[in-house]
Order: sequence, then C-alpha cells, then structure tokens
Amino acid sequence: MDSFKKYLIDYQQIINEKLFTYVREYTDPGRLQEAMLYSIEAGGKRIRPVLLLSTMDALGAQHNRGYSVACALEMVHTYSLIHDDLPAMDDDDTRRGQATNHKAFDEATAILAGDALLTLSFQVITEDPSLTDEEKVYLVRELSKASGGTGMVAGQMEDMLSESKQISIDALKSIHVNKTGQLLSFAITAGAYLSHPAEKSLQELTKMANVLGLIFQIQDDILDITGDAGAIGKPVGSDEGNSKSTYPKILGLQGAIKEKEQYTDIALQSLKRAGVNATSLSRLIDYLSSRDR
Amino acid sequence: MDSFKKYLIDYQQIINEKLFTYVREYTDPGRLQEAMLYSIEAGGKRIRPVLLLSTMDALGAQHNRGYSVACALEMVHTYSLIHDDLPAMDDDDTRRGQATNHKAFDEATAILAGDALLTLSFQVITEDPSLTDEEKVYLVRELSKASGGTGMVAGQMEDMLSESKQISIDALKSIHVNKTGQLLSFAITAGAYLSHPAEKSLQELTKMANVLGLIFQIQDDILDITGDAGAIGKPVGSDEGNSKSTYPKILGLQGAIKEKEQYTDIALQSLKRAGVNATSLSRLIDYLSSRDR
Repeated sequence: MDSFKKYLIDYQQIINEKLFTYVREYTDPGRLQEAMLYSIEAGGKRIRPVLLLSTMDALGAQHNRGYSVACALEMVHTYSLIHDDLPAMDDDDTRRGQATNHKAFDEATAILAGDALLTLSFQVITEDPSLTDEEKVYLVRELSKASGGTGMVAGQMEDMLSESKQISIDALKSIHVNKTGQLLSFAITAGAYLSHPAEKSLQELTKMANVLGLIFQIQDDILDITGDAGAIGKPVGSDEGNSKSTYPKILGLQGAIKEKEQYTDIALQSLKRAGVNATSLSRLIDYLSSRDR
Repeated sequence: MDSFKKYLIDYQQIINEKLFTYVREYTDPGRLQEAMLYSIEAGGKRIRPVLLLSTMDALGAQHNRGYSVACALEMVHTYSLIHDDLPAMDDDDTRRGQATNHKAFDEATAILAGDALLTLSFQVITEDPSLTDEEKVYLVRELSKASGGTGMVAGQMEDMLSESKQISIDALKSIHVNKTGQLLSFAITAGAYLSHPAEKSLQELTKMANVLGLIFQIQDDILDITGDAGAIGKPVGSDEGNSKSTYPKILGLQGAIKEKEQYTDIALQSLKRAGVNATSLSRLIDYLSSRDR
C-alpha cells in the first residue's frame, strides 16, 4: 500500500476509536447515544482531524496531544451534517450511502443527537489531561468562533438565504469560507498552536489554511457534476435540482477546475515556504483537490 | 416596591443588557443574529442567571465575575426552548405570549439560531477577562455536562420517549432532574465555585440545588392546570392534550402540591444550614415554588 494511504488509514482508525470511546464514556446508553454513534460510525474521511494531526507531525510535535481537539472538531462536523440533512434544511434522505440520522431515527432524535455532539465537543477538550488550562481555553474559544454565529453556522445561514438567487463569485466564496473553510482552517491553526511553530511557519500555514475550504468546496461542486454517485454516496446532480449556487454554475466546469488549481497552488506554495516537514500535508492537499468522493 | 422584586428586576436588567451585548458583539448582523436576539429578547424570568448571581451574593463574592457564565447559562436555556418548540419536538406556536422562533422566522433559521446560541455560550465564558483559565475550564466543562447528553439534552430525550406512556414517579423525577434540574443546579454550583465557600456551605448549597429543578417542574405542571393562560403565556391544559406525564397526573393535584412543598422545605432547610447570607436565595426559592407564571 502507498505509504500516504497507510498514513491516512492509520489516523482514521485512531480517530474512530477515540470518537467512539468519548461518546460511550460521556453519554448514557440509550436512544440518544445510539443516534450519536450512528452518525459518528457513518464514517467519512475524517479530513479535519487528520489535517490537525498532520500539522502537528509537520511541526515535529507529539500528535497525541491533539486527539481530543481533533475529535471535538469531527463531532462539530458530524453534528452539522445531522442538522443540515433535516427536512427543514437540505432535506436529504441519504448521506455517505446510508440513511441520514432523522431517517434512521426520527427528526426529534436527530436534532437532539446534533445538540449533544456539539455540546460534547467542548467537554472533551476540557477533560483532556494532556492539555494545559491555557491551551483548553484557547481551543474552546477558537472552535466556538469557527463553528458558531461568525463561522460555520453563519455560513449555513448565508447558504440557505442564497438559494434560488443569482449570487456573485465573491458572495459564494464568503459562504464557503464560513461554511466549510473556518473549520478546515481551525484544524491547521489548532494543530499549529499545540506545536509552537516559528512565526514564519505559522504565517505560511495560516495562508495555506485559508484556502483549504475553497479547494474542498470547489471539488465538491465539481464532483456533483462529474462524480460517480456510488463513490460519493449521494445522487449526482443534486445541486442542479435544488438550485444552489455552485462554482461550475458561475464559472463553468473548466473555470471551476482552473480556480481550484490556482488555490491548490497557493496552498502548496505556502506550505513549501513554511519550512516544515510537509510530506503528509502536501499529500493531503492533493487529496482534497483531486479526491473522487 | 418590595426590595426582593427590585433585586430581581435589577438583576434581570443587568442580564438582559449583557446578553444583547454578547450576541451583538460575537455575531454578525443579519437574519441569524435577528433570530438569536428575537428569542433572547422574548425575555423570560432569567431565573438561572439570577440564581447564579444570588449564590455569589450569599457567599459575599463580587458578582460581576459571574456575568459571563450567567449569560452562557441563559443562552443554553434559550437555545433549548427554541429547539423544543420545533414541529418535530413539542410543536408549539407561542412561547411567553409571542410567536415561537420558527413561527416568527422559519424552521431552518430556528435550528441554526439555537445551534449558534449553544456555541456562543461556551465562547463567552472563554472571552471573559475577569476569570482565570482554571475557572473558565471548570465552567465550560460543568456547563457542557449539565446541558448535553448526560444532562438537559438527555432529559429532553427521556421526556420524548415517555410520551403517551404510563411512567412511575421515579422515572418522572429522573426526566426532570436531567431536563430542568441540572441547569438550575449548575447555576448554584457555578456561583458557589466562583465564590470559594467553606466545605459545609458548599455541601448544603449542593443539596439545595439538587431539588430546585423538581420544585420548578412540579409548579410548572400545577400551573398547567390552575394557571392563567394570559399570565403563563401558553394555553392552559396543554399537558393534558399532548399526553405528557406530569406530577398532578401521577399524584393528583393535592399530592403534587404536597410533594412540591416537601422539596421546598428541603431546599430552605439546606439553605439555612449553609450558614450564608441567604435572604435573596430564600426569596428566590419561594418565588420558584409559588410563582403564577
């Protein structure tokens, strides 16, 4: 197996195991815990936690000190998917090829499972004995800023308000910087924070972090047109149907691909200038940019 | 005006002002912020924040160090009301005499406004310059435990699962200890934590805190039968209609009143034994026990 693939799978396994342990340890058995575990187990690529741990690797830090915040980040991401799939939001019946949480359980349970995962994300950071109080406070504050009313939730709201509207490429960029970018960016900055990098490295890693969300989202939009429904786990062409603004709709498919490649270049150049051990991070950026699901 | 009423109104005003400031400062203008402010402005009695600040007063602490966590507590309470009112949950059209959040806005906005308030609650604690990092970590951890999958959200799930079922008085008690009790209890323990009380005082205040949720909930159930719809801001008799288990249904109205009075006695006796400056707290307990809305 390719050493990067092995690296990815090893980290996904660590994250999966920690996530299950946290949910089982910090909630009581019953329907709520089952619903939380259902969406946690539904898997996904664990891109955010792996980015966080890879950043620590690139900076030569002990990545086990990043496990709790990496899991917190994945819990926030998972809760957002559960709530986004609800009938009142995107109204999706399947996610990653299986029934969405409210279809497998019911709407009330899905709302509560999302609420409980969001709440737990902050708890697991504060419970980690390997972090100092100063580090915990920083991580809770930055995670809440990236995920709340100035971050991911704000992006989701902007996204809903832009539906069925003609919007500019700048407005689309703003939506995705908030909706997807801020959490991906937090993965890098949190990993860097725990690793005490040189100022120059931090600056370049931050530049890189700021475009990751755009690379990710443009590729998502492209896959909605060119992807294989089986591989991506949802119907191809669903963006067209629900009249969402996408990069290919505004720039054309070729324009979107070019835009994505430009951001990928920016990310890789910043990474190079950061002067860190960048092998895994650069493979991750390639992976974000060219993934087929 | 009665000095206790003035005390209550003064604290409500402080909390209201701080809540608005936090939401305006930490979210961007727009529909999401409007929806958050709508439910924050809808008011309510601010019982949890006032309990927290009164506990600090009773222990001779500077209560301004409790403002951020008092507001965090009210944000968690407000988000829970927004989500509980959703069609998939209790499906309520009015709350405190005005349209519920999803009626005034829409379901998607209400879900997101709740999510953003929950997220913001943890942020405001970490942003408070008057608290040490150790205190912030304690408050974030205990608030998440009291409000998440072992606390309020767990209680809400148990409550939903018990609907249309015959349940025992112990099962009903367990629901309300989680659903209402843990946040009320957190108000006391957080206030005490910030005030460094003597061990004996802390023990007795904790005993008192543990029954506050039951006093509150039994009175809620009683008001649903005997109350004035205009005063309580929702239709009287709604528990009967939606086949919820209540204290009067299990114990009869007189039995419920007796049960509430017993818990009130426990609370007042513990408070007396705590040996603190208890005037306002004892008035607050009386108020919880005998309020008409």
